[in-house]
Amino acid sequence: MAKEIVDFFRSIHPISDEALTFLLTHILPVSVKKGKFLRSPIDNTEMIYFVVKGLVRGFIKVDGQDITTWINAEGNMVGSIQNLGVDVETEEYIQALEDATLIAITRESLDEMYATFPEANIIGRKILERYYREADERSFLSRLPSAEKRYKRFAETRGTILSRVTLKYLASYLSMKVETLSRIRSKIAGK
Amino acid sequence: MAKEIVDFFRSIHPISDEALTFLLTHILPVSVKKGKFLRSPIDNTEMIYFVVKGLVRGFIKVDGQDITTWINAEGNMVGSIQNLGVDVETEEYIQALEDATLIAITRESLDEMYATFPEANIIGRKILERYYREADERSFLSRLPSAEKRYKRFAETRGTILSRVTLKYLASYLSMKVETLSRIRSKIAGK
Repeated sequence: MAKEIVDFFRSIHPISDEALTFLLTHILPVSVKKGKFLRSPIDNTEMIYFVVKGLVRGFIKVDGQDITTWINAEGNMVGSIQNLGVDVETEEYIQALEDATLIAITRESLDEMYATFPEANIIGRKILERYYREADERSFLSRLPSAEKRYKRFAETRGTILSRVTLKYLASYLSMKVETLSRIRSKIAGK
Repeated sequence: MAKEIVDFFRSIHPISDEALTFLLTHILPVSVKKGKFLRSPIDNTEMIYFVVKGLVRGFIKVDGQDITTWINAEGNMVGSIQNLGVDVETEEYIQALEDATLIAITRESLDEMYATFPEANIIGRKILERYYREADERSFLSRLPSAEKRYKRFAETRGTILSRVTLKYLASYLSMKVETLSRIRSKIAGK
């Protein structure tokens, strides 16, 4: 299973044998059932995950209500974002929306890789460019002034996961009520 | 004025003399008047800016309406985001909201720095961690389900620029009507 993450990094930039050995001795496989949590605000050990299979979401609770901030499937790195590179507490939860298989590495091991292997910073920089673009897209999408526009933008840009996200979580991500999402889907299907 | 950007990078990670020389021979000062554009979708040369003084915003036009996706002041790197690290067209505009002084570097020179100087990737990676956190915050903020919560979150997290952003652009950024923003401000001021 380690092959998946190695191939992912190699597709971005070559990795030295030393960095590869370090990586392979510091990752661990993780399986999680649908509905279970990969992270909650009370966790002590911060992990970064590579999703091998499955679907996960990040959310924050505000006044008892979930605000889904991202949804990602296999082939993606996921983790808490608000404490990335800084030592602050964050209220983020990460939850499996399907049975999921992941590869985990601690934030501490990742920092050691950055400090030891220059190419880790090239790979990290390029991965962060991608996730910065995607976070900016999430920010743009949620500012679209109509629910239908938000749905259509999601369908256009994230078509591959559209049918895998249940109405409840998709509505939360798209900042609309479940009933609004159902109405938009019916309208589009009826065209 | 180059001192500002050198100090900014040095506060993140040490820079070699060679990288410093490269940087200083590839930056150029830019002044722009309030209301003028630093970037529009038809620009050919992609630039990254360090804001020395002033306030700028990024926006995208959707059906003739501006959607303000970010607002940043001095001490920040700004540029188009959707084509960062990838060769795609992007509809982003960047506009000065105050008379502004900036330091510019072309995307091409930045790529050359990344390819030549390993420490540039450490600095780039750390800067991107920060902007990824901030883009995630913009995405979270815009998903808050009430206009008042969005305003309060902005006031709490971006208090230093709150009084500098005119109602029109702040309302656009916070996904609310100007009248709603005025009402919220009056209500809070009246407490």
